[in-house]
This record gives sequence, structure tokens and C-alpha cells, in this order.
Amino acid sequence: MGLAALCPGTFDPVTNGHLDIVRRAAALFDPLVVAVLENPGKSPVFPTEERVAMLKEAVSDLSNVEVATFSGLLVDLAGRRGIRVIVKGVRAATDFDYELQMAQMNHRMTGVETVFVPTNPKWSYLSSSLIKEVVRFGGDPVGLVPDHVADRLRDALGPGR
Amino acid sequence: MGLAALCPGTFDPVTNGHLDIVRRAAALFDPLVVAVLENPGKSPVFPTEERVAMLKEAVSDLSNVEVATFSGLLVDLAGRRGIRVIVKGVRAATDFDYELQMAQMNHRMTGVETVFVPTNPKWSYLSSSLIKEVVRFGGDPVGLVPDHVADRLRDALGPGR
Amino acid sequence: MGLAALCPGTFDPVTNGHLDIVRRAAALFDPLVVAVLENPGKSPVFPTEERVAMLKEAVSDLSNVEVATFSGLLVDLAGRRGIRVIVKGVRAATDFDYELQMAQMNHRMTGVETVFVPTNPKWSYLSSSLIKEVVRFGGDPVGLVPDHVADRLRDALGPGR
Amino acid sequence: MGLAALCPGTFDPVTNGHLDIVRRAAALFDPLVVAVLENPGKSPVFPTEERVAMLKEAVSDLSNVEVATFSGLLVDLAGRRGIRVIVKGVRAATDFDYELQMAQMNHRMTGVETVFVPTNPKWSYLSSSLIKEVVRFGGDPVGLVPDHVADRLRDALGPGR
Amino acid sequence: MGLAALCPGTFDPVTNGHLDIVRRAAALFDPLVVAVLENPGKSPVFPTEERVAMLKEAVSDLSNVEVATFSGLLVDLAGRRGIRVIVKGVRAATDFDYELQMAQMNHRMTGVETVFVPTNPKWSYLSSSLIKEVVRFGGDPVGLVPDHVADRLRDALGPGR
Amino acid sequence: MGLAALCPGTFDPVTNGHLDIVRRAAALFDPLVVAVLENPGKSPVFPTEERVAMLKEAVSDLSNVEVATFSGLLVDLAGRRGIRVIVKGVRAATDFDYELQMAQMNHRMTGVETVFVPTNPKWSYLSSSLIKEVVRFGGDPVGLVPDHVADRLRDALGPGR
Repeated sequence: MGLAALCPGTFDPVTNGHLDIVRRAAALFDPLVVAVLENPGKSPVFPTEERVAMLKEAVSDLSNVEVATFSGLLVDLAGRRGIRVIVKGVRAATDFDYELQMAQMNHRMTGVETVFVPTNPKWSYLSSSLIKEVVRFGGDPVGLVPDHVADRLRDALGPGR
Repeated sequence: MGLAALCPGTFDPVTNGHLDIVRRAAALFDPLVVAVLENPGKSPVFPTEERVAMLKEAVSDLSNVEVATFSGLLVDLAGRRGIRVIVKGVRAATDFDYELQMAQMNHRMTGVETVFVPTNPKWSYLSSSLIKEVVRFGGDPVGLVPDHVADRLRDALGPGR
Repeated sequence: MGLAALCPGTFDPVTNGHLDIVRRAAALFDPLVVAVLENPGKSPVFPTEERVAMLKEAVSDLSNVEVATFSGLLVDLAGRRGIRVIVKGVRAATDFDYELQMAQMNHRMTGVETVFVPTNPKWSYLSSSLIKEVVRFGGDPVGLVPDHVADRLRDALGPGR
Repeated sequence: MGLAALCPGTFDPVTNGHLDIVRRAAALFDPLVVAVLENPGKSPVFPTEERVAMLKEAVSDLSNVEVATFSGLLVDLAGRRGIRVIVKGVRAATDFDYELQMAQMNHRMTGVETVFVPTNPKWSYLSSSLIKEVVRFGGDPVGLVPDHVADRLRDALGPGR
Repeated sequence: MGLAALCPGTFDPVTNGHLDIVRRAAALFDPLVVAVLENPGKSPVFPTEERVAMLKEAVSDLSNVEVATFSGLLVDLAGRRGIRVIVKGVRAATDFDYELQMAQMNHRMTGVETVFVPTNPKWSYLSSSLIKEVVRFGGDPVGLVPDHVADRLRDALGPGR
Repeated sequence: MGLAALCPGTFDPVTNGHLDIVRRAAALFDPLVVAVLENPGKSPVFPTEERVAMLKEAVSDLSNVEVATFSGLLVDLAGRRGIRVIVKGVRAATDFDYELQMAQMNHRMTGVETVFVPTNPKWSYLSSSLIKEVVRFGGDPVGLVPDHVADRLRDALGPGR
């Protein structure tokens, strides 16, 4: 076992951008615990179990990746699991000020460190919310999310449903 | 041994901001190789050996930290040492676009990952160049750099020299 | 006929900043189709027909400007009209990361290009939402929007209504 | 009496970051009127009177600081009090574009100037909303807000309430 | 003929990022005049004629693209050619403030408009100067620049020259 | 006498943007000491005395404005004059991170505060260096600087000199 890390998110649903970060983080950290936030501010399209199931299917080939859920403070999950590092993807500079604020608060409360991994430029324009918007109006998510996620997205949001 | 990492810089000279990043990184990565750039764009105030010596003295209590030098491409040093992670401190969002560009180029060339660690807000205003400017005009660097560095800064740059 | 372009927005209501972009874009593109989003996220103060009417009155002297409406994906309107360029005003760097994300998604889905035109600095502080806030509390919108829009704003939102 | 200034905010609740700005502004401006917005966009956790009471207790040692309330436009309060300067803390560059827009609108409407004071880096990660999030899930606000505010926060939001 | 545009740069040397912008701009504007700055602030690695030759070879399949040179003010070239639009690629928000300033100055002086086209995310980390740095220390530019440019780069800057 | 402030810069030469800040600051602070840096990093076009003379002529109608010079640390001038506030104009968010760093360093060294005043949007694209570039290549600075400065700029830098 190596240096364990937490990779948090809402994953509503998981995108190819998320998976790029998870795969690259899993090559460094062991285990990598992907932590799904159960109760995000805006109500999610997919219930927690479905978000977890889509993630698990997408990372089934990575033996050192676990998928967990949390509600409340991420640092509490870190404490319960004895994990000292949070890994986050960053797309652009303007994402960064808010993320710095969260990271510094988490560090002050518990000493947990946050490390930021730059998103692959190829996926820099992807976000779950933008993809949902696209599908809602009939756009095609294939190539932006794993295929099994694309199907569920169309079922949940597509105009023909 | 755990996950090894490189922490690069010019360190002309090392500041308390640099040391905060090195100490926090050394609590995660093992070994942490602090990599001093021998030939930066602007000619440094302190020669390489002196920059290395000041760093070594400052991290002498950290058994898993090494100080090395490099010229040319950082990813070549990473390759020679078999290291897959570069650690960098970030102070603010506007630092970030240039750093992203470097990180993405390094990843494309060799697969080496860069992880960014937020600077402690307490040191967010520190940079080697600002401290040198201050000392050059008679300002006092104590509290901004380790004491042994403050002495050398005043000798090298202070108006009374 | 020249190079046709779409200029999208909610226009709730049109401001002098919007008009500056429309007039400058209309000097380059022909026709320029101003595209009013029918169903924005937040419910608009003015219904679609009124937003369209205020725009039409404001651009009545520009023979190559059309006002259209759309719901759903802007790129679908572009496709139906055979238009290959979207024109957007940008006020400041921090607007830009979100706009880049949208532009890259639109390009990936359909090949439609987005070109960004810098707002006249004179209007850089204007936005429909800030102007509505000002009018709601009794401030005067004259000089920030066309006069016929100022009247409707006071009727719709002013404290004396 | 010197140069009077207004220091506006929602203060839901006052944090140590707010107090740092208020204390430093009070050393320059006389009187300094801290202006509590009665009706912010999102409904506040604490009613206006309680937000005012917490602030008054926190600044009771500063004889040139007054606490006032306002609804509507801040520049109207400035006009009624004959105050020509608004003081705002800024934490980071990305806060700044929105603040510039407000400042330029306020200047255009009434000639009132806004001056920005950089937040102490030590508090750069603090915001009322982040602290409320932390307390809601059982985190401890001591050291982030005055002690009398910490107690009320736990009573209002803590999980054991 | 359609709407003519100028696409300025130093092109020392042309990269795949530049070519992405030129190709996409050439699909909209006709003719597209790529304008090579003869005397940039920092002395270029390649003389003007060589920068022009590399560009011409790279765009030889695009019949509506011309390569020209200029010294002095870009707006003077625009005036001489009767061109009313400048096209620039933008990679990230932090590039943008300087570019806005230039665009607004050019507009004020002559009425020439600048439109910004977002760089393909795939090339967002590329710049001529970063590529030169990489080659100087033995890195391989293949895939970052056209092949005929890669050869010249290695000849001009590679460590084995 | 009111609250005294320092307004520092290189003023090589003074622009209408600088003057906007000086005039607005002079309406708040008394006296306002405009502090001209004698030895900037890059060698200035105009010698110190000429930069001072141009400034004095431009502010001759403002009785509470003084023009002084300094070399070395601005906070030393502040200390000698007993001034506790530095006033700086800010044009855009991306200027801000560097300015924050300087302000926080100055505050830490001496307790001197820096307040930032937003540039009038009308002048947001102006800088001394951009204007010099324009004049060097035959552009006209009238309307960007005071008339007496425009004459000296053309004499010093214009292509016909």
C-alpha cells in the first residue's frame, strides 16, 4: 500500500474528464477512494446509488480504486479512513480561487492536504452540468461520458423520453 | 519508501513560503527531492552551491528530503531518478495559467504528473524577488526567510554592504 | 450578403452595452441575427415578446439585423439558419473561462465557431441584472439603456409602481 | 472628524476576516459606518437585529465605528449620511471583476468612490458562507469568528441543536 | 470575396496551435492575411523570411490565406489593406486582460475591430517560447509543430547542433 | 488637513488614466502626495525632472496635490512623511494579484495600508507603455494624455523626430 487519497465530487454523472483525473490519480495514489457527495446543494439528476453504480462500472478495471459516499464534511471521511490527501482536478485559473479557499479551510480544520491535478486540456470544457444541458435539448453525449453513462443520460433527460 | 516527488525551483534564496511547501510535501511524499535550477533565465544573486547550502541547512531536520540540482528539462531529472510526480506551490489563480501550461507540456512529453499544493495564506505574498527588492533598499527580511538566509541576504544585497 | 452571424442573449432587457456589441457586429457580419433565449434559467422580468419588441425598436435603423428567438440549443438555431459564427461580447477576463467552455462545447458538437468581441470599456460595468437591481430600489436607468427601455423598466420594477 | 466611510456587508455572521477590515479601516476613516444589508438575495441565517448585535459587540472597543442598517441602494445611505467613500475588503483577483462593476455603477450614479482594502492573507480563505457550511456539519468555528459569534453559530446551525 | 481579416503574430516559429486558429479563421474570413511582426521586442530565433517561409509552407493548401509582414502598428497594415477585423486566438482568461487593452486601443485609434477565437483545448498549452525551451534542452517538438518546422527547430536550437 | 495619502508611480509619462485617479484621490485625501519613482527597473524615456514637471503642470489646479520623488522603498517615504495610506488605481482583476502581494508586504513591514481605486472604465485600456509604443510608430497620443504631454511624447519618440 502506498499513499492513500480521496477524490471527491458529485458525479452527476461521471464524465470523461472525471475519469481522466481518477485514472491519473490512481496511478499515483493507493488506494484512491472516489468519494461521492450524497447531498449536494442542487438536487442531483441521478440518486446516490446510481451515481455510485455508474462510477463503479467506469473504474472496474482499476484494482486500487474504491467508490465511497459521504454526507457532511469531506475531512470527516478523511479522518475516519485515515487519509491525509484530497485530489482535485482543476480546469482553469478562475476555478482556482474557490478551490484554494476550501483547501485552506480543510487544512486549517484537520491538517488534511489538497493537491490539484490539471485536467487534460482535451476535456477542459467538460462539466456534468454542461453535458446535462446539452442532453436535455437533444444533444448527443457520446464521447463526453462513458457509453453506459450516455445511455442513462438520454433516458433521464433526453427530449424523446 | 513511498511515492517519490520532485519539488523544483530557483530558490534564490529559499523563503519561508518555499519551506512551508517543502515541509508539507515531505509529510506526503518519500523521498522528496528538492530540485534547484542551476541556470535560470535571470542570473541569480546566489550561485548554485550557495542556494543548495541554504536549502540543506533549512531542511536538515527532514530525513526524507534530498536537495539536488538540475539544468535543462526537469522531466529529464524526473526520468533519471524514476520519479513520476512534480510538486509545486501555488499562491493565486493568476499564477495558475502559466503553471498549467508547463504541467501539460511535461505530461505530454513524458507522462510525469504535476500536483499543485496551495501556499499557506500566511506566506501568500512572499516571493524571492520581492524579498530581494526589499533587502536591496534596506528592508529587513527576518521572519520572511530562515535566519541563516536573512544574514546572507543582507550581506549580498543590503545597502550597508 | 456576407458572413452571417448569431448574437445570442437573454436581453432582459437590452442595455446600451448589448447595443454597442450589436452595432459593431452588424458592421462586420451580414445578416446579424440577434437570438433571444426564450427560457432562461432564472425567470425573466419581461416576457419573450416584450424583450423582442424592445430589441427591434433599438435596432430599427440597422437594415442587416434580424431579431429571432430560440429555446434549447443555440447551435440548433445556427444549423437551421446555416449560420457558422456566434458573436459574443466579453467584458472582463473572469467572464471568459465559462464562455470558453461553452464555445468549445458548441464547436465540438457542430463545428460552429464563437468569436468574442471586447465590450466598449465605457459600458464594461453594465449588465441587465445590475440595472434591474438599481431600478428596483429607485435608481435611474437613463443613459444605461435606450430611452424606450428605461420607461418600461421603471414601469415594471420601479418602487413607485 | 476626518474622512467618513461606509463599510457594507451582509455579516451573516461577522467573521474575523470582516473584523480585520473594519479595524484597519477604522484606523484611517472617521467615522467608519458599518452598513448591514437588511434584505440580501439569499435569506440570512441570522435576522438583521442579531447580525447588528453581533457586530456591535465585536467592535465595542472602537469609538469611531458605528453600525447601521440599510435596504435598497447603498449609495442612498451614503447620500443621506453625506459619506463619499465605500470601503470593501478584497480577498483575491477573481472577486474583483464583480466588485469593479458595482463600484463603477455606484460612481456613475452618485460620484461615491469605492476603495478596496486587501484582506489580511491570514483570513483570505474565510467567508460567512463557508463557515456556516462547516458548522452545519459539526465543524468548529472557534478562531474563525469572535467567540460570542461562535456560540450563536453552533446554536443556530450545529448538528446537535 | 467575403469579410477580410488580419491574423497577427511573431510566429517564431508557427505552432500547431497557431495553425488551428489560422485554419478555422480561414473558413470564416476571406481573404485571411496572416501578418508576421518583423521586429518583435525580443530578438527572434528565426529571421523574418524564414518565419514567413515556414508559415507559407504550412498553409499552402489554403487558397484564401496570404502571408504578409509588418513593422510598426498593426492598424496601419489594416488601413493600407482596407481590412476592418483582426483575429486573435485566446488560450485562457489570464491572457485576456492584456489582449483587451490592445484591442480597445486599436479600436479607439482606427475603428478596427478585434475578434477573439478560443484556441482548441488540445493545443491550449502550446506557445512558441515553451516549445523553443523544450527543444533547446533536447526535447522533441514533433506533434507540436508541423514536421518541416520541427526539423528547422532542431537545427537551430537542439543540443546536438 | 485630512487623511494624507501617497499615490506612487513611474509616470513615464503621466496619462489621462493616471490623472483620473489623482483627481479622484485628491477629492478624498488631503494632502495627496504623488510620488514619482526615480529609478524604475526599465530605464524611463523621460528623466525624473521631466516626469515631475509634466505631472506638476497637469495637476496645477489642485491645491492639495504635491509631487515628490522617491528612490528605494515607498514605505520609507511614507514613514518620513508620516503618511499611512497608499492609493493605487486598478484596471482589471489580473493586475490585482501582484498588487495584493506588494500591498501585503508593505503592510507587514510598516503597517502602511494600500487602498485600491478602480480606474474609470473609459481609461481602462491606457498605460504609459502602450501609449509610448503607439507614438513610436506614428500613432497620435492626443486625448490619451494631457496636451503638453502629447507634444513631448512626439518630440521624444515620434518617427519624424
